[in-house]
Amino acid sequence: MTYSTLATRVEDHVMTIELDRPEQLNSITLQMCADLAAVFADADADPDVRVVVITGRGKAYSVGADLSEGAGALDSQDRPDSDEPFRDEGGLITLQIFRCTKPVIAAVNGIAAGLGATMLLPIDMVLASEKARFAFVFAKRGIVPEAASTWFLPRRVGISTAAEWMFTGRTVSAVEAKEAGLVRSIHAPDDLLPAAYELAREIADNTSPVAVGMIRQMLWRFSGSSHPMDAHRVDTALNLELGRSADVVEGVTSFLEKRPPQFPGTMPGNAPDAFPWWTEPDFNA
Amino acid sequence: MTYSTLATRVEDHVMTIELDRPEQLNSITLQMCADLAAVFADADADPDVRVVVITGRGKAYSVGADLSEGAGALDSQDRPDSDEPFRDEGGLITLQIFRCTKPVIAAVNGIAAGLGATMLLPIDMVLASEKARFAFVFAKRGIVPEAASTWFLPRRVGISTAAEWMFTGRTVSAVEAKEAGLVRSIHAPDDLLPAAYELAREIADNTSPVAVGMIRQMLWRFSGSSHPMDAHRVDTALNLELGRSADVVEGVTSFLEKRPPQFPGTMPGNAPDAFPWWTEPDFNA
Amino acid sequence: MTYSTLATRVEDHVMTIELDRPEQLNSITLQMCADLAAVFADADADPDVRVVVITGRGKAYSVGADLSEGAGALDSQDRPDSDEPFRDEGGLITLQIFRCTKPVIAAVNGIAAGLGATMLLPIDMVLASEKARFAFVFAKRGIVPEAASTWFLPRRVGISTAAEWMFTGRTVSAVEAKEAGLVRSIHAPDDLLPAAYELAREIADNTSPVAVGMIRQMLWRFSGSSHPMDAHRVDTALNLELGRSADVVEGVTSFLEKRPPQFPGTMPGNAPDAFPWWTEPDFNA
Repeated sequence: MTYSTLATRVEDHVMTIELDRPEQLNSITLQMCADLAAVFADADADPDVRVVVITGRGKAYSVGADLSEGAGALDSQDRPDSDEPFRDEGGLITLQIFRCTKPVIAAVNGIAAGLGATMLLPIDMVLASEKARFAFVFAKRGIVPEAASTWFLPRRVGISTAAEWMFTGRTVSAVEAKEAGLVRSIHAPDDLLPAAYELAREIADNTSPVAVGMIRQMLWRFSGSSHPMDAHRVDTALNLELGRSADVVEGVTSFLEKRPPQFPGTMPGNAPDAFPWWTEPDFNA
Repeated sequence: MTYSTLATRVEDHVMTIELDRPEQLNSITLQMCADLAAVFADADADPDVRVVVITGRGKAYSVGADLSEGAGALDSQDRPDSDEPFRDEGGLITLQIFRCTKPVIAAVNGIAAGLGATMLLPIDMVLASEKARFAFVFAKRGIVPEAASTWFLPRRVGISTAAEWMFTGRTVSAVEAKEAGLVRSIHAPDDLLPAAYELAREIADNTSPVAVGMIRQMLWRFSGSSHPMDAHRVDTALNLELGRSADVVEGVTSFLEKRPPQFPGTMPGNAPDAFPWWTEPDFNA
Repeated sequence: MTYSTLATRVEDHVMTIELDRPEQLNSITLQMCADLAAVFADADADPDVRVVVITGRGKAYSVGADLSEGAGALDSQDRPDSDEPFRDEGGLITLQIFRCTKPVIAAVNGIAAGLGATMLLPIDMVLASEKARFAFVFAKRGIVPEAASTWFLPRRVGISTAAEWMFTGRTVSAVEAKEAGLVRSIHAPDDLLPAAYELAREIADNTSPVAVGMIRQMLWRFSGSSHPMDAHRVDTALNLELGRSADVVEGVTSFLEKRPPQFPGTMPGNAPDAFPWWTEPDFNA
């Protein structure tokens, strides 16, 4: 697969996605929105991909929506006619990431503003360069934060910090973002991608892709569940299957033999029958 | 509007509310409960108000319910007869704040105990004096924490800290409250209100009151939502309207012209048609 | 009550539970699972118990499921025939702790891995020895984390840290666990149990067991509620009863007389009529 606004490669089970409009500071066009939604669907479907790393080419991570056309830039009613109801394009990206069964790591190399910031919120682990900054600028422009970000941000930094960042639209440093919990670690610019790959390798080399895929969905789905019984039902059902899978034989045997595991299972091919355990909500419901 | 237990003023779009029973350490009577519920409804309805700052006059923020009548002070069955079922008066305050579309900032100048502490929980941003202290004393008195505080506190400080504070009823310092996430910043007593107003100005001077009002409700409402699709539907609908509003024209134009914005929209007058997107639950349901 | 894998005692209203297979590093057998579910039910039912402290005997807290039988150790389909559908045994423990009305304190003296780690998640307050370590190893073995832990962990450490710990299966130090919010305090090995008992005494000596029991359930239940109205209804109903209870008379009187309280109420005997306010979900629903 190729994407006109992204550069991608897969090496040793790790897919790298680079936002690839460096001269435009990776500002996000409708084409890049479509490419981003597609690339995460493709990563999810590719059994060779176990972990995804996303970063920006050049100086910026992404400055967000392209405002070069001026005052009408944020008017979604200008979109081409369609039989489908309009849906915020940022939300199509973040919901695709939300549904993904492969861990996603962001390496934020510079400014992440607007959709450049909100697209990070369903990403599991966010590493930041010392030069990274974050800005949820929407209220300064007269719109609300998109990409379902008002659902995600309180879950990452708490309601109070989420409110302050979104009410003010101010630019937040990497240090502030780490203190708030959005960023897990800060790195010198040259150390950023190596740190992201080290974390990707730790997952890809040591854990079952099937188990990890299930865990990713369990964590995100049960974040919104009202009772731990929901998790109890699902972990019971999943482990009844996984407990006699080829992966568990390798996992226990390699542990007892004190050697690295070589898990045969891949995703989505070896997903348990009990997956998915939910019905995805309909936008029009 | 005047309130017998509160002093209020509006200056340059910022409403200040002072708890005004300083000799009684701002202990909370039934009249003050009624005044607090009313003042937040009034702030919400006043198009001139963009941000609310609440603080206590005198030495204390508020020591909570007035216990001067002794052992019967917490017996709600003594209330005057009414056709309506009794509802905890603290909850009427915090649910009113919860529903507010104006950002609320607390400047906690001294002790905040009992309802003086629980009324802070739906407030977006809490600044504390070095002299502030917090005490969720209810279990020491034999009752449960009111004002829906058992819903709010885990969302601000996590379930474990919430449990420890409410199980022990102990007094917590400003430093502990900041480490736990309840307090965003600590200030010398003389710097407290200036810091609160600086934050209020940052919001009032730079962001669209309509966008901010929507964001406030999105963050608090989606904190309790089970799936990001809920936010995706709402941000799609809101931005379809806001994306061609007078505010967005000003927001994008002022940005491109590198000048401060002057947003024409006010709340509640310019609320989008898609607001509110929920049905408020009935107490008696 | 005696339990073959646990040592228990009750002193001055505090029950201590010791995992008691020190030679096996407190690895968890099916018998220990049954004992743990039973001991928390018994603690809940015993009016003399106000607070529970759990710790491990010997060097480890618990290394988790006993893998000594090799590759089939995690195959739950080997369980003896039963008319009941199989349920993950870890979940039976954590759901029992979740339902408990007595505060639970863990004193983690050493390694807590697998079910040894996940059983900690519904425990209100976790104290750690400097020697404590935590490992959610499941994905390394090829299974998903059990004991409803994917529901609990994001509520304690946030979704991002939960994902990283569970995706990698790595061992986490006490310091990391405290920074993430799983652990409330770290102690020298000899100071660990005294600190746990000091916290237990603070609760048992100063607060109403009935109020504390209600608070525990309110905090955990409303963590999964979508609207603060749920808490408003329940705190209104509970305080209508508690506000004229013998405990509240003692709570207010002792406060006004500046002396320690002696609450007459016990749990479960003096639970308000409004408790429980929920219907427990059925595993088979």
